[in-house]
Amino acid sequence: MTKTNTPLLLRALDGETLERPPVWFMRQAGRYLPEYRELRAKAPDFIAFCLNPEMAAEATLQPMRRLPYDASIVFADILLIPRALGQEVWFEAGEGPKLGALPDLDRLAGEIEASTERLSPVGETLERVRAALEPERALIGFAGAPWTVATYMIEGGSSDRAKARTFAYQRPAEMDRLLDILVQASVRYLAMQANAGAQVLKLFESWAEGLPEDLFERLVCKPHRAILEGLDELGVSVPVIGFPRGAGSLVEHYADTVGVEAVALDTAVSAAMGKRVQERCVIQGALDPLLLRAGGSALDRRVDELLEQWGDGPYIFNLGHGILPDTPIPHVERVLKRITDS
Amino acid sequence: MTKTNTPLLLRALDGETLERPPVWFMRQAGRYLPEYRELRAKAPDFIAFCLNPEMAAEATLQPMRRLPYDASIVFADILLIPRALGQEVWFEAGEGPKLGALPDLDRLAGEIEASTERLSPVGETLERVRAALEPERALIGFAGAPWTVATYMIEGGSSDRAKARTFAYQRPAEMDRLLDILVQASVRYLAMQANAGAQVLKLFESWAEGLPEDLFERLVCKPHRAILEGLDELGVSVPVIGFPRGAGSLVEHYADTVGVEAVALDTAVSAAMGKRVQERCVIQGALDPLLLRAGGSALDRRVDELLEQWGDGPYIFNLGHGILPDTPIPHVERVLKRITDS
Repeated sequence: MTKTNTPLLLRALDGETLERPPVWFMRQAGRYLPEYRELRAKAPDFIAFCLNPEMAAEATLQPMRRLPYDASIVFADILLIPRALGQEVWFEAGEGPKLGALPDLDRLAGEIEASTERLSPVGETLERVRAALEPERALIGFAGAPWTVATYMIEGGSSDRAKARTFAYQRPAEMDRLLDILVQASVRYLAMQANAGAQVLKLFESWAEGLPEDLFERLVCKPHRAILEGLDELGVSVPVIGFPRGAGSLVEHYADTVGVEAVALDTAVSAAMGKRVQERCVIQGALDPLLLRAGGSALDRRVDELLEQWGDGPYIFNLGHGILPDTPIPHVERVLKRITDS
Repeated sequence: MTKTNTPLLLRALDGETLERPPVWFMRQAGRYLPEYRELRAKAPDFIAFCLNPEMAAEATLQPMRRLPYDASIVFADILLIPRALGQEVWFEAGEGPKLGALPDLDRLAGEIEASTERLSPVGETLERVRAALEPERALIGFAGAPWTVATYMIEGGSSDRAKARTFAYQRPAEMDRLLDILVQASVRYLAMQANAGAQVLKLFESWAEGLPEDLFERLVCKPHRAILEGLDELGVSVPVIGFPRGAGSLVEHYADTVGVEAVALDTAVSAAMGKRVQERCVIQGALDPLLLRAGGSALDRRVDELLEQWGDGPYIFNLGHGILPDTPIPHVERVLKRITDS
């Protein structure tokens, strides 16, 4: 691959400070696009949609056709892993995910190898997307991080994570074992994605929020390190973006101890903290999705501010959280133009 | 007052590093105490309970009788202010607070003076508590901070604050006016509490979480500064503890720019960030209420760790959030003994 068509995202992840940062948005494939809503309506349920390579590839590619994103992220869901490990997972309209009872840990552990096989449609999605995507646009694979996935498995759905955190305090050995099972399944799943064409991998730790430092180290940093080591052992060498959402002041500890190529920052990270993290690795973030939806001159000003505060170091422009379903497409177009023109 | 019976909390707030930190717990008057549940059952509703000086004083004093807390915090609620300003507020069992439609801002502004009068029962509660409380135990008054109170007023109850944040983006002048009304009402309310015997005032910014830096400055720091200035103008000189819960890395900006005597830290603040804040002012926090409830040796270890990491500077021991209703009392006794023996 010549320098000319090396994707901008890969150059940024390599530590280059570029003329303008690469840009992509979390949930850029999704409900704010009418063509997505139309496609989604054809699938019997959300899990079937994610595991149908033709539909998932189409959903992944839809935003790439109409918007100048520098990277594409495979359309999938962080709860595909617990499902592949044998826990029941289903989605109820307007209610978010639901999960059946947490299976016995021995039983879960026995399903690790088979889980990767069950997730092979995601690999096929990646192959289809890679074949259709221009070479200068990067392709990202991902997994939910172990603690976040464990909170859903323990709580049975979206929650305040109080039950899962209490589980971590009161049954530490079982919690560590559950995280280890998820680490092993994630390593295999992510390696499969890299082999299928993912050039970057992202770990979504959506619920790092509120964890005291000792738990943050044990439940977030340690499993993330184990995943990186596992990928290393399998010879997978694609860059990894870690997203400890809500880590607050602990994001510095994360950057110091985990070893990801890039740390994705949420909406609440201060300019100063972002710079501290940027001294250690590439940063990504952190426009407020509510501001993207609201639009107006406040949006323009904030985009400029982010470019100014972090743009002189290795930086990937993104939101601090997923794009909201009712975001007007012209707002997205306006921000992308502002960045690609910058 | 001689040095001997100057409350430990006031000495800590004066910047003294003490042999052991003063300790009190957020929501130390509350449902984990059977005597509280019994008392609460006698009141027709929660608002009436808060505004009945005899009952509220009794609730405030209950934990002081059985536990060696160094400070008492008046039993009241952060939603008394919107109610006193004329917005309907009620509590439904198991559902949290509910609020009627946000009144017209001119109408709210016209009620500022009267609101303080309507809150006078809280002053009477403080007088009763002060009369009954030993002189070496400090008495704390409080108010919900403007942004947090505004989120309830705009959203109509507990929420993800998306509507309130969108309001801040799309109707900035109205948001600033609402915050200003709340600043004015809070200054009068807090001054009244200080005059009635509160020796310390606390600002509960329960929903600082997730705010981008520009909004954090505008919605949190600026109104907090205005409250401090307002108190100053009224000649109120008691120390103020600010609690920007969920501020994450922005807690440093808060400590730098607001000027409170102490910053209360939530569960997720790193040891390093706590120390940075401690270079600027007194810190308070930050034991996980879920760990207090879970108990065991992990609880002992964490208490020791907090004492060790922050105890060599001005420090007030507390939780990072309110005590949970189903917390076993022996766990609380154990932690308090560990601290008072330290």
